[in-house]
Amino acid sequence: MALAVSINEMAKALAAADDFLLLTHRRPDGDTVGAAAALCAGLRKLGKRAYLLENPEVSPKLEPYFSPYVRPEGYEGRHVVTTDISSHSQLPTNGKPYADKIDFLIDHHQNNDLSARYRCIDTEAAATSELVFSLISAMNIPLDKEIAALLYIGIATDTGCFKYANTRAETHRQAAVCIEQGIDVSEINKTFFSTKRRARVEMERLAYQNLRFDGDGRIASLVITQEMRAITGVTEDDLDDFSSIPSQIEGVLVGITGYEMADGSTKLSVRTTTDQINAATLCAVFGGGGHARAAGCTISLGTPFEAIEKMVAEAGKALEGIV
Amino acid sequence: MALAVSINEMAKALAAADDFLLLTHRRPDGDTVGAAAALCAGLRKLGKRAYLLENPEVSPKLEPYFSPYVRPEGYEGRHVVTTDISSHSQLPTNGKPYADKIDFLIDHHQNNDLSARYRCIDTEAAATSELVFSLISAMNIPLDKEIAALLYIGIATDTGCFKYANTRAETHRQAAVCIEQGIDVSEINKTFFSTKRRARVEMERLAYQNLRFDGDGRIASLVITQEMRAITGVTEDDLDDFSSIPSQIEGVLVGITGYEMADGSTKLSVRTTTDQINAATLCAVFGGGGHARAAGCTISLGTPFEAIEKMVAEAGKALEGIV
Repeated sequence: MALAVSINEMAKALAAADDFLLLTHRRPDGDTVGAAAALCAGLRKLGKRAYLLENPEVSPKLEPYFSPYVRPEGYEGRHVVTTDISSHSQLPTNGKPYADKIDFLIDHHQNNDLSARYRCIDTEAAATSELVFSLISAMNIPLDKEIAALLYIGIATDTGCFKYANTRAETHRQAAVCIEQGIDVSEINKTFFSTKRRARVEMERLAYQNLRFDGDGRIASLVITQEMRAITGVTEDDLDDFSSIPSQIEGVLVGITGYEMADGSTKLSVRTTTDQINAATLCAVFGGGGHARAAGCTISLGTPFEAIEKMVAEAGKALEGIV
Repeated sequence: MALAVSINEMAKALAAADDFLLLTHRRPDGDTVGAAAALCAGLRKLGKRAYLLENPEVSPKLEPYFSPYVRPEGYEGRHVVTTDISSHSQLPTNGKPYADKIDFLIDHHQNNDLSARYRCIDTEAAATSELVFSLISAMNIPLDKEIAALLYIGIATDTGCFKYANTRAETHRQAAVCIEQGIDVSEINKTFFSTKRRARVEMERLAYQNLRFDGDGRIASLVITQEMRAITGVTEDDLDDFSSIPSQIEGVLVGITGYEMADGSTKLSVRTTTDQINAATLCAVFGGGGHARAAGCTISLGTPFEAIEKMVAEAGKALEGIV
């Protein structure tokens, strides 16, 4: 049985249950951690037992917000809750056994393929933490500084600090309420938005060296090789938004980032900044796909620089005739 | 006569006057332009005549928001308004003649040294545009899409898109109201926060090449030479936050940026990320000063790299004994 429910119905169902185990997704971000920990803290305020399932991939930045809520050994709970988990493949390894036992699913992604007893999905919400904010409010749980900080982290990180297109009026309203609880918003913003890992900086330094422009500055591209990864010691998290670096340069219509993979193939990420060039169409030439403004493909033969060369040629053709 | 007035008193005084000339500051940013243009548009909604004084330094990004309100030739108005102008030196050249004729001064800076008939200063406000938002509301002028976009630009740019420490709950609340007017917030954010000029990118590329770490990664520094400026063609605006690049790297306690000046001297900007190291004290060694976390000084002798070397040595001494 899978029931699509409103915030109020979900709030009622949660309030009627007890002994929760909350799951976060693979490569956990601020939203899945913020949403799960805030809901966990909120449910405890109602006198309930609630814990998070361990997640070995939690980053050092999120760790202090996550670990206080992790379950003690042996705790299984009676009701499984997922926050911000959109698919079976997004369940962490230790979460897979719970795939068929989800009672409460809270998410904002489109095309969520998980089943659950109660599913509360709002694709308009900028973050799952926005939904949790509303749930906590619907359950009449008073916000405190701790819960407010967790919700703020979820909301702010999923919107690039209120910069991305998903940010809406409600997002700002909730942030205002969180700030009013006295959270150290300046410190949180510094941690999540103004601090770069040294490995990340070293990778930017190397990547900038091979940044190239073609088509009168309308195509920009860069390459991340396996050697560069080894030299800098970057993690996947450090590489998070390298795909957007080329397309953020003024005048660039097509931005291409090439990632050399361990097997020698090159994964190309293509971003376009105009509706006149379709990234998915460019990637389809090489068997890939995606969206109009962001798409990807894999080229198996040749060096990453040769792969870039091929995509630059396709982009150049597509740019012909565009003013 | 200079009268410190509240928002409501300023609103009443503005509503009682007519024929305004609004001034923006030198090297105009989003806040001075957003505040002046929004107030100008608001006053017109009350049936008044209001225009902006030309400002030759308005950047291409702000130009479309500024130029529609610029005065026609010959217009002088009867009442001079300044928005976000904190001192005589911040008046643009063509604004200097109005220094002693300011009727309405609206600002959020500390230590404003301008006199005016009515002065409305709120140093708690994240942006002067926040004050204008409140003034417009106090005058019962209904927000429209155009005014909302101007206010949003002012508020968002002065807070680094809600990231800086000046951001408060009220800042987010006003942003929410602006977004509800249907402004294209995604396009505005892209323009002001996700687009880098190519010259800026070229400068980052060069600056990263000379980025160095000392003191076990606790000191980071980089240099901007005159040659690098010439090669990249950067403007002062492009160099805006290079001073924060070194200190934003994880583990760095002292970040130093050296700017080679046209006369061969080096201007050093020092940022610290801990209260244990005082940037002003470090800069005082070379005759400079500033705040505990951000200070500056000028070293006249030697190359910029030698100037950095000297400051690194001072920072190294200050770091001794700090864990």
